Amino acid sequence: MTRVRMDLFVALDGYTSTTGQSPENPMGDDWGRLTEAYSATRTFRQNVFGDTTGSGTTGIDDAYAAAFFEGVGAEIMGASMFGLHAFPDDPQWKGWWGDRPPFGAPVYVLTHTAPRPSIPMEGGTTFHFRSGPIEDVLAEAREAAGGLDVRVGGGMGTARAFLRAGLIDDLHLLVAPIMLGRGTRLWDELPGLDLTHKVRTEVAESGTIHLTFTR
Amino acid sequence: MTRVRMDLFVALDGYTSTTGQSPENPMGDDWGRLTEAYSATRTFRQNVFGDTTGSGTTGIDDAYAAAFFEGVGAEIMGASMFGLHAFPDDPQWKGWWGDRPPFGAPVYVLTHTAPRPSIPMEGGTTFHFRSGPIEDVLAEAREAAGGLDVRVGGGMGTARAFLRAGLIDDLHLLVAPIMLGRGTRLWDELPGLDLTHKVRTEVAESGTIHLTFTR
Repeated sequence: MTRVRMDLFVALDGYTSTTGQSPENPMGDDWGRLTEAYSATRTFRQNVFGDTTGSGTTGIDDAYAAAFFEGVGAEIMGASMFGLHAFPDDPQWKGWWGDRPPFGAPVYVLTHTAPRPSIPMEGGTTFHFRSGPIEDVLAEAREAAGGLDVRVGGGMGTARAFLRAGLIDDLHLLVAPIMLGRGTRLWDELPGLDLTHKVRTEVAESGTIHLTFTR
Repeated sequence: MTRVRMDLFVALDGYTSTTGQSPENPMGDDWGRLTEAYSATRTFRQNVFGDTTGSGTTGIDDAYAAAFFEGVGAEIMGASMFGLHAFPDDPQWKGWWGDRPPFGAPVYVLTHTAPRPSIPMEGGTTFHFRSGPIEDVLAEAREAAGGLDVRVGGGMGTARAFLRAGLIDDLHLLVAPIMLGRGTRLWDELPGLDLTHKVRTEVAESGTIHLTFTR
């Protein structure tokens, strides 16, 4: 049964990192600090960096990272996560992930700009561009997932829109043990997820707090 | 060596509970939900409710509760925590804690209203009222603590003033696995505590996340 999943990085003070984004710094300032424990995992190093040496952490963070990559049949992301805002006039832009993106599934990019043709990539990823309401895009992604899950990848504007609309079944927050003091506040004007979802908390060896909201 | 300590309750979304305070509801709405796991501990039930039956939880939450009551030689709290705002015209007001408050030490109440005489209570607690700068009150409390620690008790305005001034050595946050969606935001415009303090994260059986910031 398809579930709609989302994984987000957030600091102890509730800020996510969207300051200082530019083509040269696509994830913005502080992203490295927010995701440090995650990108140190063996699973991430293997699946995203292509590191086959088996290096990387193998504890609780890695267990969540492995789950992150499992059972996803389609992905949805915002235009900024794909990089459309950074390269608005480049029809050849294919995202930040190289020729073989780690999704291995159809990826629906939300955009309000002119329609673009879909971009098939190596390894099973195809980028599709959609400008309809998120509910419609989700319905299409759900169909494409063929019984597997749909993941909403981000960025934060997209994430908050799905949360506000109550569309997320499983939310996994990686709370880094740092403060940002600036950026986008994840929790502003969101419905009380604890009323609709079961909350689970776990701390990894890195100090990262894993919060899962499941309904 | 005296350390300045503070323990605060906060929800996952960074809100603390100061909505709906009144004389009949002195801690405001949501306080019960925020402190549920803490007031369920054996230590709290014994030290605050006077429950000598040994009932209550005995896990990680209780270990923190026991530490909360140990080694404090003086306490500082804001006027609202003492109840001066709720009972401004009652010179006989002695706080919310009955004849034998659980502090057992001098308690310095910060107030800008007319000076009041100190109030000695049973069990070693004496309430003093001070209108000077927090640094001066802290110096007096430090002296009175006689080598034990000084605890800053709250409420949130007082807590944030001490944090902004960089006066807290040890901050313990009890993050309840709930969302409030309203109230005072703990983290607004505070210095990045992770730059000056070591952060430690631990999850209790109740799902409460214990965050400690130590310098």
